[in-house]
Parts: sequence; C-alpha cells; structure tokens
Amino acid sequence: MQAARLHEYTEEMENALSIDEVDEPQADTPDGVVVEVEGAGWCQTDNHVIEGQWAEYMPQDLPMTLGHENAGRVVEVGEDVTMVEEGDPVICHTVMTCGTCRPCRLGDDMHCEDLAFPGLSTDGGFADSLRTNERAVIPLPEGVSTVDIAPHADAGITAYHAVKRASRELNPGDHAVVIGVGGLGHIGLQCLDAMSPVTITAVDMKDEALSLADDLGAHHTIDPGNEDVASEIEAITDGVGAHSVLDFVGADETTALGPDIVAAGGAHTVIGYGGHVHEPSQALVNGDFSYRGSLVGNYTELQELVALVERGDVDLRTTRYGLDEINDVAAKLEHGEIEGRAVITP
Amino acid sequence: MQAARLHEYTEEMENALSIDEVDEPQADTPDGVVVEVEGAGWCQTDNHVIEGQWAEYMPQDLPMTLGHENAGRVVEVGEDVTMVEEGDPVICHTVMTCGTCRPCRLGDDMHCEDLAFPGLSTDGGFADSLRTNERAVIPLPEGVSTVDIAPHADAGITAYHAVKRASRELNPGDHAVVIGVGGLGHIGLQCLDAMSPVTITAVDMKDEALSLADDLGAHHTIDPGNEDVASEIEAITDGVGAHSVLDFVGADETTALGPDIVAAGGAHTVIGYGGHVHEPSQALVNGDFSYRGSLVGNYTELQELVALVERGDVDLRTTRYGLDEINDVAAKLEHGEIEGRAVITP
Amino acid sequence: MQAARLHEYTEEMENALSIDEVDEPQADTPDGVVVEVEGAGWCQTDNHVIEGQWAEYMPQDLPMTLGHENAGRVVEVGEDVTMVEEGDPVICHTVMTCGTCRPCRLGDDMHCEDLAFPGLSTDGGFADSLRTNERAVIPLPEGVSTVDIAPHADAGITAYHAVKRASRELNPGDHAVVIGVGGLGHIGLQCLDAMSPVTITAVDMKDEALSLADDLGAHHTIDPGNEDVASEIEAITDGVGAHSVLDFVGADETTALGPDIVAAGGAHTVIGYGGHVHEPSQALVNGDFSYRGSLVGNYTELQELVALVERGDVDLRTTRYGLDEINDVAAKLEHGEIEGRAVITP
Amino acid sequence: MQAARLHEYTEEMENALSIDEVDEPQADTPDGVVVEVEGAGWCQTDNHVIEGQWAEYMPQDLPMTLGHENAGRVVEVGEDVTMVEEGDPVICHTVMTCGTCRPCRLGDDMHCEDLAFPGLSTDGGFADSLRTNERAVIPLPEGVSTVDIAPHADAGITAYHAVKRASRELNPGDHAVVIGVGGLGHIGLQCLDAMSPVTITAVDMKDEALSLADDLGAHHTIDPGNEDVASEIEAITDGVGAHSVLDFVGADETTALGPDIVAAGGAHTVIGYGGHVHEPSQALVNGDFSYRGSLVGNYTELQELVALVERGDVDLRTTRYGLDEINDVAAKLEHGEIEGRAVITP
Repeated sequence: MQAARLHEYTEEMENALSIDEVDEPQADTPDGVVVEVEGAGWCQTDNHVIEGQWAEYMPQDLPMTLGHENAGRVVEVGEDVTMVEEGDPVICHTVMTCGTCRPCRLGDDMHCEDLAFPGLSTDGGFADSLRTNERAVIPLPEGVSTVDIAPHADAGITAYHAVKRASRELNPGDHAVVIGVGGLGHIGLQCLDAMSPVTITAVDMKDEALSLADDLGAHHTIDPGNEDVASEIEAITDGVGAHSVLDFVGADETTALGPDIVAAGGAHTVIGYGGHVHEPSQALVNGDFSYRGSLVGNYTELQELVALVERGDVDLRTTRYGLDEINDVAAKLEHGEIEGRAVITP
Repeated sequence: MQAARLHEYTEEMENALSIDEVDEPQADTPDGVVVEVEGAGWCQTDNHVIEGQWAEYMPQDLPMTLGHENAGRVVEVGEDVTMVEEGDPVICHTVMTCGTCRPCRLGDDMHCEDLAFPGLSTDGGFADSLRTNERAVIPLPEGVSTVDIAPHADAGITAYHAVKRASRELNPGDHAVVIGVGGLGHIGLQCLDAMSPVTITAVDMKDEALSLADDLGAHHTIDPGNEDVASEIEAITDGVGAHSVLDFVGADETTALGPDIVAAGGAHTVIGYGGHVHEPSQALVNGDFSYRGSLVGNYTELQELVALVERGDVDLRTTRYGLDEINDVAAKLEHGEIEGRAVITP
Repeated sequence: MQAARLHEYTEEMENALSIDEVDEPQADTPDGVVVEVEGAGWCQTDNHVIEGQWAEYMPQDLPMTLGHENAGRVVEVGEDVTMVEEGDPVICHTVMTCGTCRPCRLGDDMHCEDLAFPGLSTDGGFADSLRTNERAVIPLPEGVSTVDIAPHADAGITAYHAVKRASRELNPGDHAVVIGVGGLGHIGLQCLDAMSPVTITAVDMKDEALSLADDLGAHHTIDPGNEDVASEIEAITDGVGAHSVLDFVGADETTALGPDIVAAGGAHTVIGYGGHVHEPSQALVNGDFSYRGSLVGNYTELQELVALVERGDVDLRTTRYGLDEINDVAAKLEHGEIEGRAVITP
Repeated sequence: MQAARLHEYTEEMENALSIDEVDEPQADTPDGVVVEVEGAGWCQTDNHVIEGQWAEYMPQDLPMTLGHENAGRVVEVGEDVTMVEEGDPVICHTVMTCGTCRPCRLGDDMHCEDLAFPGLSTDGGFADSLRTNERAVIPLPEGVSTVDIAPHADAGITAYHAVKRASRELNPGDHAVVIGVGGLGHIGLQCLDAMSPVTITAVDMKDEALSLADDLGAHHTIDPGNEDVASEIEAITDGVGAHSVLDFVGADETTALGPDIVAAGGAHTVIGYGGHVHEPSQALVNGDFSYRGSLVGNYTELQELVALVERGDVDLRTTRYGLDEINDVAAKLEHGEIEGRAVITP
C-alpha cells in the first residue's frame, strides 16, 4: 500500500514526506485493529514532527508514516476484540494505551506509562490503512462522515480537553479568551460556546479568522496587530480580566499576555506550543494564576466530543486533499494558508 | 508610638527601616479594629518590599510601616464590630477586604477588588499597634501564644493555601516534593504531612534545612549541591515523577526542575518568587502540567490553619527580636541566617 | 402601607392572608436597605408557609408578611451602604446574612449561622416596601424588568443552584431528567440546556407542561399517567440510566423513581418537597447514588443567574396580579392552575 | 478442591454453607488469573447473600461459592496476562470488569456495564482457589501478609472509598461522625484519621467498639444506648453539626440521625445497609444535605489503600478460621460476636 513517510527531519515542507510503497499492517496481536483510512487530518504537529521538534519527547524510528488524526473502517481485528468488527466505521483515539498501568486505570489515557502514538512514535494514518488497537477505537454512528470527523481525533479532542477543564471552573458572567482561531481554536471556540454560558473574546491576527470567530459565537474579537489586547480585555471585563485564557498559539507573544489579561486566580491554558513561557515567578504569585499545559485528551473525552458533534454543536471546517498533495498541505499550513482543517483522503 | 518605617527603596538591609515616632492608629470606621501588636513576623517579602519589588504590583505611599504577619490584642473597635471586643487575642489575616465585591462574596478574599494590605499598601504591624478591620481578625483561643502564631498570618497561610490545593489532588501512594525548607517550607511540609498520606521529598541546599525536613516528616531529602534532583526523583518515584511540586523558592533553577520532576498531569506550584519561569510551551504541553502561582490564602483558610495549630499538627520554629533589632533581622534573612521564622515583638 | 399578612396557619388558601395597613419599614441599621417592591413572585413555598409546614424549620412570629421573591427600587439606605443608592433597581437575594460567620466567609450564604429570611422568618415583599440589607441586593441593569425578574429571587436561583451542581458532573452524551415542569422546573430546564450539552428528558403529568418542556429544549418527554417512567428512561438511555435527576416535585412517587432511573454513581436531587424519600439503604448502596437536598442558592449564584437572564438564556413565564388578588393566586397554585409563575405587583 | 457453597437462601446461619468437593478453576480466557486463596474475609454482606437479600440486585446461580475478600498467590495465568505471573502474591479487587465500557474507561470499575462479582454473582474465594482476571489483581509487596490484608479487598476498600470522597470535602476544624465501629467502621476511622485533620466522633452501642474507636484516634465517643446522639453532636460541634457522617450501619435508627446531626450542606454517607432511609423531602431540602450511597470502591482506590497499609496507617483487627469453621463465623457475625474481621484460611 502507499504511505507518506518521513525519512529525515527537515525544515523543507515542500519535500518533507515521500510516498512509499509499504506492506499492509496486520492485526498481529489479540487486541489489534486494522483500519482502512478514509480521512486523516493534517495538523501543525505534523510540521513540528517533520522539523524534529518531537524527537526529544517521543522515540521516533525513521522512516515513519505520519498522520495521527485518523478515521475509517475496520478491516481486520485480533482474536480478543469484541467492541468492533470488520466494516465498522471508527474514529481512532491518538494513542494505543496499555490498559493496565495506573494512569490507564484512572482513565488518564494520555498519561499511559506504555503508550504508542501512531504518527509520532509508530506508523500513522497517511496511508491506505493503519494498525491500532481496541482501546483506541470509538465506533461511529453511520450518519457521521469518517472524513469530516477525522481531525477531531487530535485537533478536536485537544481543543475539547482544554475547554472542558476550563468550563468546569467558569460561571455565567465570567469571561474567556480564545487566542488563535485556526484549526484547533475554531473547534475550541465552539466547544466553549456549547459548554459554558460565558462571554467569549477571540484574538487573532487574521481578518478571516476573526470573522469566523464572530460567526461561531465570539462576543468580541481583537486583532493584536491593530489593538492592544490587554487594554481591550480590561475594558471588556471591567478591569477584572478573563477567568480563562485558551491559548491555541503558545508563542512568546501570546503567553506573555497572561499576567495582563488573566483574572486573579484564573488560568492561561497553553495548548499551542510555538514559543516559550517566560515570566517572573512573582507575576504568577501576584496574580494567583497558572500556566496550564494541555496535552490532547482522554478516550472518554473523544466519546464526549463525538456526542457534541452528533448534537450539531461543533462544525468542523475541512478541505480534502489526496495523499499525493500531502507536501503541498504541509507547506501551506506552514505559511498559514489553510483555513479550518486539511484532511488527507488516502 | 514607635513604628519601623520604609522611607525609600534600597538594597541596603542594614539601614532599611527607621524607627519613627508616629500617631497611634484609630478605629475610625464602623468596622475598624485596632490591635496592640504582640508579635509581627519578618518575611522574605519584607525584603522584597524594601527593594521596591512590590511597587509595580501594589500602590505604596512611602514612608510606610512594614509588617504583614500580625497578632496581638484588640484595643479598640468601631461601632459596628460584633465579632471581637477590647482585650480579645487575635491573629490578623493579611488583607482588609471590602466584603461586597464578587470575589469577597465567593470567599476569595485575596482577589478582593478593593483590598488594603497592611505592610504592603498601608501601615503594617512593626509598631506598637495596627489598624485593621473586622473582616481581617480571627479570635484566638486563650491557650495560643500571639507571638508564636503571628507568622502564620502570612508565612503559615501561604504555605497552607498551596498545600491545601495540592492535597485535594493527591492520593495515598503519590509523591510530593517540597523545594526550600525555610520559613514557609517548613510549615508547608508539616501541613502536607498532616493532610496527605503521600511520600514527601524535601530539597534544600542547607544541611540544617534537610535535617529539619527529616524531623518534620520528609521521607527523602535531596541536596541539589551534591545530587542531581531529577534523577533522584526519578529513582524515588519509579520513573513516574512527583504529582505535586511545592516550590517555596521560585528561583530560575527551581522552576526549571518542573519538566523533569513533575508527573504527567501534575502541578509545579510557585510560592516563592526569587526568579523566573522560563520553559518552552511544548514542555508544559508534553507534560500536561501546570506552573501554578499561589498567593497567600483566604480568611477561612487561616481559620483552618489555626485549627491545625490547635491540633498540634504544625509547629513553628520562631526566634524573637525587639523592634530596635529589625534591620539586623532584615540583613540576616537576606544572608540566609535566620532559622525558621523571626518575630518582632514591639 | 398595605401588606398581605398571615395571622394563623391554615389549609384554606382562599382566605389565607389579610391585607393589613402597617408601618413602612425603615433602614434602621447601617447596612439596611429599603426597597419599594415592584414585583414579588408567589411560590409553592408560600402555600407551605400558610399551612405551617415551615414552622418547624424557621422561627415565625405571626402575623407576618409573606413574599420572598422580591425586586424593585431602592428607596432608603443605611449609612454604611455603598453598593446601591436611592433609585437603583435591584433583585433581592432571599436571605439577609451576617457576613462574618464561617459559612458567609466561605460564600455559602444559605448556611449563614445568623440569617433572616424575609417572608419566612421576617416580613416579606407582598407589601409596598420591604426592608432588607446590603448583602442581599443585586443591582440590575436598567433594561431588565424588576417585575419579570422577581421570581428568579427564589424560584430561579433554586432551580439554578441545583442545575449548576448537576452540570459540573455532566458530560456531553450524558442524560438528565427534569421531573416537574412548573414554576421552578421550567427555569431549571432552561438553565440545564444553557449549561450542559446533555440529553434532557422532562417528566410531568400535564400536557401543557410537557409541551412547554418541548419548546424549552427537552429532547424527550414522559407523562407518568400514560407511560412507565423507568422503562422509558431505560430505553432512552440504553439501559445506563440518567446521570442526574432534578426532582422539582419531591413527592413520594417521584423520589421513588430514583433507584430505577439514576445511573450508577449519579444523583437524584430533591428540590421540591411534597413528600418523602423512602428507600432501603441497600438501594442507595447498590446504585452508588445520592438523594441530594438542594436549598435555594447563594448570592453569587443569583448574580450568575442574572447574567444568564441578560444573555437571554432563561425566559420566565409570568402573569401579574394585584395585591388584592393574592388569595386567589394562593388557591389557584394549590389547584395547579398557575402556568409559569405568578407575580404580585403591590 | 474444597469450597464453601450456598445451595439455597436461608436465615439459618449455622448451616448456611456446605463444604463441597468441586473442580479446580482454570485460567480459561486470555486474561484469566487463578489465585490460590490464602485469606478470604468474612463480611456482613455474606450474611445478606445467604438471606437472599442480593438476589434482586445480582444474578445468582445456586449453588455458588461465597467469599469476595480474597488474597493469595497466582497459580495460573491466561496467555495475555503480563501484570502478574505464577507465584506472585496478590489482593483481588472484588469485581472482574470488562475494561472497554465507558465506566471502565473512566476508571469507575464498580459501574462496569459487564462485571462479574466473585462471591456474589460467580464462585468466590471460600475455596482452595479462585478464578479472577488480570484487571482485578493487585500485586503485593512481599512483606505484606496475604491473610492479613484480605479483608481490605472489600471491607477496606468500601470504607476507604466512602472516606476518600468525604475527606475531599473536609477542612481542618470540621467535624466527622463515624457510626458503627465494627469490621468496616474501624477501618474507616483509621482512613479518616490518616487523610483528614478533622475532629472525629464515633458512635456505637458496644463498649469495646467505643474503646477501640478511642484507641484508633476518635476524639469523642457516643453510646446511643445512654446518650442522645443529636444533642451530643450539637454540643461537640457548637451547634454547627457534622460536615460528614459515615454510616457503616445504615439502619433505620442511624439514617434517621441525618437531619439532626449533619451540618448544612453536608452529607450522610450510607455504607451499611441494614434498614431504610425515610425522611420528608423537606428535611433534605432545608438541611441542603445528601444521603449518599457508597458501593465498594475502584481498583485504583484499592491500590491507594494498599499504599496506606504499607505506610502503617491502617491496622486491621483480624482473627483466622479454617474453612470448616465457616458456618460458625456466619452465626457469630449475625450475633455481633466477631471483633474486627474474620478471615477464612482455606
């Protein structure tokens, strides 16, 4: 079968992956599941993987097939698998977890002590088919398109996980700020609107992004190129600040907003990871606030997100591309030229 | 009366404050309370105030009497005060809050939108008497020494607040790390031991501090001068990391430990504020962990801490000094020569 | 001024209250606030008070003016009041709290150790004006009608408080059941819909109530006169049960549904109080579930509800009546002939 | 092998079980684990099973081997089992769970949609060996006695689970009441003491139980035969009531204490299930309090309890009996003649 593989780390997105002919994967363990990939979302993290930015955090054995936002149909199952069978449409949670370590037993899949992350540590879904396991698959209702839902496997759940934690702490009348209304941010904004009756301010450099934010329920928008974010937030929140900031960019400039825009006791959630957090400890102490890193989300949270999608609360903006266009997609995203989310349809 | 006042910001601790003759304060509002100060703890924050480090965060009108860890006896009350009367022994919560803003109504005193902070924004307790208000005083049982309990007004509650939040998230079998076993840290360690059946590792550069930690219940101690903290924690926790790090130092070197020693999903609480937090956003994201600033604590938390003290769960190491020795104390603390907590007895 | 007062406990709603001529109240304490009542909601609890059902739980000195859902305009304030001034439109939180006891300091107003409850323990708002205090009033934006919002002071906040606790525990894909879509229930249903993306089933004996539920966002409706509630819920929830049941009736028959319809680990919140909870302890144990009593809500929750009303998320169905019609209203509610909420406009 | 089996429901404890010769169980599934039973605790629930009280809640196919508090050594494992191997000492979580349903994925083992409960729904541990599965076993450190720890598999975790939920809501200075200091209660009291710095009052009819409570850390004891529980609690708590009541009896008389002894907003946790909860809904509403059923506890909670046992925080009082004495044990417990916990050593 064909697979888009990374042979060496590079900054050159135009030639990052090569389309190789490789063997079809097998359900070679009792819990194994092979999925024929119908949609595989392209993610900013793919660009970071190509640049080698994850080599420090994940064991990576190149060449490796990328693609960690996968959905499709089951084509083979191991002998112990009972949850799905051949032909079932599924979305794949990003990680294959062990199920027996304490984090797994607590439901904290992302903290599994023995996980594999297809597309980051093993072969992923930019290919005709993908090997995963029973613990990673969630059956989909027949009405849901596997192609359209694919990016929720990572972009969606990452946004949802961060928003869910935030929304547990928000009350009507509170303020929240969404920084970056791109692939993740536009999902986060919708999740926030569905789960928390708060006032939402969206921050983005691009007019189209702010216009999308407006369509998706943001009450205020700020373009940091033309407006001072801190003074705008101060005005909007009557000097109180935002109880929750969801930073889908994570650049030096966006994390630096924290001390000026987060309300006392609030949180600046770091979801994107373009730059650094750099502040005096005293700023955190005086504001009694947190920088909270947020990594993807648990299997049960993906179940919850699928429920939100079924309710019609989250509408994903996607564009489809063939496997042969994959390097174009990589380059376009690098230059900020992808609206919503690109989905590869191998 | 006499009061130890700051006339200008300085790095010279030896001559930082001058003992001035000033008017006695009056209970000049219906909720006013004047307390004859019996004990006023000296705090690292006093050094920071002297250096001007709080001028950016608090309105300060010099000259100002310092001292924010106060306990003593009520000598005058305003006409509406019902909770205490002349002669009652009290500990003073650090801030005078309005009682009507939303944070006050939620019980989040430290986030009061209209607070005064004696010793940081108005005259404090390094003086014969102090003006505060009804919302700030907590009556003490007669058996408790006002001198001995004074430092709990800030050092104690600051440690308690951070530990309480941490302990709500800790389970038996988990690991916690206490960085810095000084004035705050040695209280935090005891609170942690009283509230959470976890394994505690103490980190400090000084032998006496580690020995004190040992006495107070730490299961492991690490001297970063001789041992690699990250690999020690890895060994102690079987590679899992510490679910909670309580950083009473907040220096560049201590916050930098976060990504290497915090377990996935955990928190590095920043209580001391000697330096910076400086990490790639990706480190927070990959570890799914937080840097959590922690500022003093609420009035009700000081009530809880007084209950812990009454139970005998927290033993404060104090040394008493006269008001005339106050600059010596400032200098000694600057040079790390104060064991436990210094209390001024005006 | 005129006031509708209860002189003795009775089952006769038609003659329950008498319209007496009484003195105008004064702001006779520093924190006192006198409000000219523009709207005062009639509540099922008023019927219970008339029958003497609250005499065991509240000190009541008859004759007493009833009315605990009050809104209007400030006409006099005590000397220490800063939050409102003459002419300000306000809604009155149901209880006058002390502000200094530990529950008040924690923000748990309803647990105040020294509270007065106008309409239940002191004179209420079925009168030209009402004496309350600064801690009980919430200023309203000018656009909001004091008459229309009045019932939120008790019916609204009671529904909101119960729903808020429930919604913190609910996830997308979960199921909730609202029993009783009357004065409180129709608010609760809207709050639930605004705060939790869950599947909602409404249960009521009356067609109009079910039709209202349908309009307000219920996904399923059940008439227990014609359908078996337990088997319907089992079918709707695929055998899992409802994670949260909000019982605005609290009758023997409705609380008895708990063991059959609450999902393992869930809660049956008892808000209405028409009857008893009567179950074997083993039913609670085996279901790992709770019967959770819910009493009104805190001041800050009323602030949050006002924010929801301003967003347009909660629409209250009200009908206005003069003070002279008050016993008709009492009788009509007793016979289930009030749709939505009756508001007295003295 | 020999097994103590129930052939029909009976009130006659003296002849309740018969010692039958049955086949050894096999690890006949890939995740199967066979444990040679070294200790199997006898539990009040065994008496209830014998009386048929669980037939309504659990599918039971008689004859069935009882015994759900099991520990011992692994003698056989299925082909996919990696966590334990032959010879490992283990304690068995009470239920064999599926691992794939949503409750399992959330970590809520007890709510598994497809569980088997050895001793209640399949053959239990009053036998030479027991079949369970990988998800139910927790390896023990070699120093821990399998016989001594066995009752923690149910008695221990049930007490721990209830106490853990309570302790998350308790603060220093709060009050807790433990009703019933028997097999479960004496564990609960120790867990509470280890996890919450609160004031503990123990209630029991028996002098030895109160004396044991005293030894184990209770600050007050009440004998309801001689003292009025409600007025004693009122005196001890200064009229506030107990923030948490842990009712290990669950009889009509003990649940009836709730409205009189639970502080506003608190919880009366029902763990024992000897009788009924019977209260007016208004009592729950007015007290803003809950009756909270509590069922065993999760696998991860048993891990946490094992950690507490290793720390030496929980000391179980046990007496050992042979399999042939099992009906004597049943009868003795029925007559309240077992101190602490009886362990069968097959």
